[in-house]
Amino acid sequence: AGFRGVGFSKFISYGNALNVDEVDLLEYLGNDKKTRVICMYIEGTRRGKELMKVAQKVSCKKPIVAIKAGRSEEGGRAVSSHTGAMAGSSMVWDAAFKQSGIVKAEDVEEMFDYARIFNEEPLPKGNKVAIATNGGGFGVLATDMCVANGLELAELSQKTKKKIKESLHYFASANNPIDMAAEAGVEQYEAVLNALVDDKNVHSIFCIALFQPVAMDSEVVDIIVEAHERSEKPLIVCSAGGEYNHVHMKTLEENGVPTYDKLSSAAKALGALTYYEKFKKGHSYK
Amino acid sequence: AGFRGVGFSKFISYGNALNVDEVDLLEYLGNDKKTRVICMYIEGTRRGKELMKVAQKVSCKKPIVAIKAGRSEEGGRAVSSHTGAMAGSSMVWDAAFKQSGIVKAEDVEEMFDYARIFNEEPLPKGNKVAIATNGGGFGVLATDMCVANGLELAELSQKTKKKIKESLHYFASANNPIDMAAEAGVEQYEAVLNALVDDKNVHSIFCIALFQPVAMDSEVVDIIVEAHERSEKPLIVCSAGGEYNHVHMKTLEENGVPTYDKLSSAAKALGALTYYEKFKKGHSYK
Repeated sequence: AGFRGVGFSKFISYGNALNVDEVDLLEYLGNDKKTRVICMYIEGTRRGKELMKVAQKVSCKKPIVAIKAGRSEEGGRAVSSHTGAMAGSSMVWDAAFKQSGIVKAEDVEEMFDYARIFNEEPLPKGNKVAIATNGGGFGVLATDMCVANGLELAELSQKTKKKIKESLHYFASANNPIDMAAEAGVEQYEAVLNALVDDKNVHSIFCIALFQPVAMDSEVVDIIVEAHERSEKPLIVCSAGGEYNHVHMKTLEENGVPTYDKLSSAAKALGALTYYEKFKKGHSYK
Repeated sequence: AGFRGVGFSKFISYGNALNVDEVDLLEYLGNDKKTRVICMYIEGTRRGKELMKVAQKVSCKKPIVAIKAGRSEEGGRAVSSHTGAMAGSSMVWDAAFKQSGIVKAEDVEEMFDYARIFNEEPLPKGNKVAIATNGGGFGVLATDMCVANGLELAELSQKTKKKIKESLHYFASANNPIDMAAEAGVEQYEAVLNALVDDKNVHSIFCIALFQPVAMDSEVVDIIVEAHERSEKPLIVCSAGGEYNHVHMKTLEENGVPTYDKLSSAAKALGALTYYEKFKKGHSYK
């Protein structure tokens, strides 16, 4: 989390919950104006009904991301030796999370992945994603993973397709996922990202930027940051590689662009954001 | 991969597979003495039966880790626009991977996570894992994730339990997962890891080392490296945190200890190693 620049308003370890428990803390953080996203690690609860009631109320105001530990039988036994809590059935917990709008994270890093996107991005208007990439294989995998996380590929508008085609090399693909191919550089990223930002069919943008190809330039980072600032929808970046890549990723992060080094992490984060938006929308109509 | 210090003997991009395809390459790499682990990214094949036949033969000699892209319907369409291949049904691919001993990776980073553990660790004799941690919650989560990836918690021998209890603070847990608590340092890691290395009930060791607590010392890295060198079973490390942590992780990596910054990545890698061992054992008995 430190590396990713996540800020903490409060960090509370409540031990064995003798006097103050997760329900009290959730209520408090729900009303705390300095807290924008609530992250929880839960092993068990003695007040299941109250937890759900409070969580549902809080979820309508701000996102709650939670890890439920002790999901397996063996994990449940480890819980009772760790905090003495009753781990409970994972099916019951899943249902409770769903009903109260809690976004489930499987891992500690995943929790921070979600916290970052919730903190930095607006909620999408729906689940239609556009993927832009300079690596074809990465585009295919990102598609698989977006679909696995509840997203659908946006049908790009004719205007967008035209703009994209004008900027791409003749063999690149203007369909979604947009494969700009290894020849893509500043010009292509600029044209494609701006077209996607302006396309109302697109609810969120999944930008893949691999900095190894010769055509790529560090200036692409500025292009992405500018598109991100102009965008009223979520725009996240996935990149992969060694130290050279980390420099670019860090600059993106410092400029408020959620950046991930795994396709699956990026797809899950975008999926979590979209999942939460759906919960919130459903509850505002009630 | 660069950051993790994975070495490449060959790196082949075979484009649209007009003259040379995945079957030819697999056969070639299977016989190549400089290649210890084969990593593949596959979008489709025109020679399914041959691919399976060659893969099964090669898998008995060395591990094949493969990503199958285009698993979703939308991903399949992206494949046909990328390399022109037929993506095929993901169920058929899953069955083919299983029968031919191919270890499936979902993501590019995951593929390298697996490559590292296959390259650096011996195969475990079974699926019984011991988890040692200085963070109780991490131990619970690691347990859940190990179980989800086909591992079981080892029942520690009485001798091991005795040794562990002697070295731990009175409130720490000598059961598996072994929660050494935040008070653990050099002495505890040394006693616990060595006991696990010597315990025949334990087939693999999942060591969690969080370097933030005051009791922790950079010297714990040396303890882990020594235990790893002495161990005839897989020993991997999971750690989490910022730059301070990365320094320790890098030293572990440089000394040949597979190190992961996510619990899920570590559990999946250990699961993959155990899965492959089971395949290989099954085939050597035929």
